Amino acid sequence: MLEEILKRIRPTEEEIKEISNLAENVIKNIYDVANEKGYNILEALWLGSSARNTHLKGDHDIDIFILFDKSVSIDELEVIALDIGKEVIKRLNGKCQINYASHPYIQGIVGKYKVDIVPCYKINFGEKIISAVDRTPLHHKFLIERLDEKLCDEVRLLKAFLKSLNLYGSDVKTKGFSGYLCELLILHYKSFLNLLNDAKDWGERKKIILNDIFELYKNPKFREFDEPLIVYDPVDLNRNVAAPLSRENYCKFIFFAREFLKNMNEEFFNDYYKKLEEKLENRDKGFILTLKFPKTEVDDIIYPQLEKFQKSLNKLIEQNEFKILNCKCYTDSDYAYIEWEFLVYQLPKIKLRDGPEVFEKERVEKFIKKYDKVFIKGCKLYAFTERKYCHILELFKDIIEGKIKNISKPKHIDIKSGVILWKQAT
Amino acid sequence: MLEEILKRIRPTEEEIKEISNLAENVIKNIYDVANEKGYNILEALWLGSSARNTHLKGDHDIDIFILFDKSVSIDELEVIALDIGKEVIKRLNGKCQINYASHPYIQGIVGKYKVDIVPCYKINFGEKIISAVDRTPLHHKFLIERLDEKLCDEVRLLKAFLKSLNLYGSDVKTKGFSGYLCELLILHYKSFLNLLNDAKDWGERKKIILNDIFELYKNPKFREFDEPLIVYDPVDLNRNVAAPLSRENYCKFIFFAREFLKNMNEEFFNDYYKKLEEKLENRDKGFILTLKFPKTEVDDIIYPQLEKFQKSLNKLIEQNEFKILNCKCYTDSDYAYIEWEFLVYQLPKIKLRDGPEVFEKERVEKFIKKYDKVFIKGCKLYAFTERKYCHILELFKDIIEGKIKNISKPKHIDIKSGVILWKQAT
Repeated sequence: MLEEILKRIRPTEEEIKEISNLAENVIKNIYDVANEKGYNILEALWLGSSARNTHLKGDHDIDIFILFDKSVSIDELEVIALDIGKEVIKRLNGKCQINYASHPYIQGIVGKYKVDIVPCYKINFGEKIISAVDRTPLHHKFLIERLDEKLCDEVRLLKAFLKSLNLYGSDVKTKGFSGYLCELLILHYKSFLNLLNDAKDWGERKKIILNDIFELYKNPKFREFDEPLIVYDPVDLNRNVAAPLSRENYCKFIFFAREFLKNMNEEFFNDYYKKLEEKLENRDKGFILTLKFPKTEVDDIIYPQLEKFQKSLNKLIEQNEFKILNCKCYTDSDYAYIEWEFLVYQLPKIKLRDGPEVFEKERVEKFIKKYDKVFIKGCKLYAFTERKYCHILELFKDIIEGKIKNISKPKHIDIKSGVILWKQAT
Repeated sequence: MLEEILKRIRPTEEEIKEISNLAENVIKNIYDVANEKGYNILEALWLGSSARNTHLKGDHDIDIFILFDKSVSIDELEVIALDIGKEVIKRLNGKCQINYASHPYIQGIVGKYKVDIVPCYKINFGEKIISAVDRTPLHHKFLIERLDEKLCDEVRLLKAFLKSLNLYGSDVKTKGFSGYLCELLILHYKSFLNLLNDAKDWGERKKIILNDIFELYKNPKFREFDEPLIVYDPVDLNRNVAAPLSRENYCKFIFFAREFLKNMNEEFFNDYYKKLEEKLENRDKGFILTLKFPKTEVDDIIYPQLEKFQKSLNKLIEQNEFKILNCKCYTDSDYAYIEWEFLVYQLPKIKLRDGPEVFEKERVEKFIKKYDKVFIKGCKLYAFTERKYCHILELFKDIIEGKIKNISKPKHIDIKSGVILWKQAT
């Protein structure tokens, strides 16, 4: 069955040839431009999964890195790399734009291929990085020396499995497995099935140390990490490659590893997650309320803020005794959304306030000074008071009108620009 | 101020004279009838609060006890006492009925007075009782030797204070302070205000041992009791006179002792509790639902069952995710009622079911076998299922139709005879 899957996900010979030709062409052009303009670059390297042959069919990303000497200033590095990049894409008849990660780089579209031209400093194993991507050439060196054709196919199976489960990608939205993490896991476990067989028994926390680390370092020292999955980066032992993986996704991986091993079905490689979501959505609903905001930033920036904001609103909702069934954040190209489904969204005006035990004299005094309709039940004081919000919509109106203090205000979301959308419960 | 109260609650000279005349008359008649019929009785005694002058104005209860030798069988005792009682009330031109406590006794109405003629065995301090009321003559002996006029007035103040707070009476409905307990407390604290001054600082548990106990017993041994207030009966150290007092009422007493001492207001003696209740009732309401049952037994029997039944229904209500604001039991002459006020009484069809953590393999297996729409959030499994009861009325219809297992079935309440009454929330 896995062989069948591989046939579907392995890039064709033709695809591979085309990518490799284009990559070589980009590199040749980089050297040409650098020579012509007299720029001092050390190397131009084809890196990333397509360079290592661990990419999936239809993955048309080509990563070319320009390596600089550490004596070059970061400003100079940026200027030179952008200049070379622009010129190279132009000569290949592509379109290009400047993208921003830790520093700006050129992203070009050449035919159906996406070509990233990224500058970095050349460092050696164990050396400190200057820019965030300086490790990438070392990652490539480490992997290319160890991955054979068989292992590359196993990486592909893992990636396709994770993709179908919505667990592939280390961005702040997905919080899943990066490509590099997939490659290290396969190096360690030798095969996709070996990995799943081990993962099905993982507990609250799993630590993985590649054997190669003991060959590369004389006295390796391993930092403690707080994340559920810990995979030490062979290129930098102070780094956990699995750091972006959320606890929830770690658990999902364990769960679906078991499910797949119980029932090795092709379904698991075909948008399995979407089908699960459809199955879950096909049900009665509670009261659904959505906050919609104009999107002023990219997902990478907006997602953590949406999640933090929702968390702080959840507290507020619970304080007001409404009951959440489910909640989520999502975005489209123009808007950011925070959505809730409610079990309890309407309450009577009357509210019960818990007070102290009769024996706590001082607290009792405060309580009866503060509240009027006080009574004793069991050993404790209670008071009837009036509820401020009888319907969840009243609370949300005050939220977007900025009338509520003590909630975390997100930096890049303008609360007052929010719109409330809602559907009556079925 | 307390002197003013006393003027109001102290029986008039005329009242006292009338009661005492009637009591003497009853006793004379008892001896007469016993002589005429040749019944072997030891004594006829006027007992209770009116005999000790600790009763409140308008309290027209006269307790007359007929004491028998321990050699008389319980059956004989009952027959003789009922026969004498009936004849005596007849001779006084009263009406009479047989009442049942631990054993039957005669209750007569003579003019505006209620005359109880109760048989018991004569025992001494420290001797075992045969019938439940055998201690009463000893209680009287103990108190009458110690209470002077001043103390009797202090008892009256305490009784009136407790009555106004709905804390007077040791029946299963009130769960408050018995008359005898009031008298012992005043004996111990010497005055109403002394008692309140001490009570305001009482903690979770208060133990009171009268000094007289050390005079009456050589090596008194004190049992442990589990109740919040412990007052050893000087007539029987194995008995806690405050046993019927509920924890809630113990707390109320402490609370209102403080309130009264802060603000010595006559209000506290004038149906204070009813006024508090009126104040509490004057508010918005949740959804109010009442179960109404034909009353087939007296309050003493029905109350504990109503409370137990309500407790078990409360569990059921919470299991179904409805939320109670308040609940109570009450009766009138023909019906028993259990009432709830709900904060949440309506829910969407959809229900969220908590599952195990992903790591608990076996429980995970069971969970996914049982439920269809399963998902992972954080570290745990959840499932969407359907709710059986979307409205509290649906649940209660099944309750009175006897469709729900696992609830405690009360002995003297026929669930299926129940009627549901409800009011829409404001």
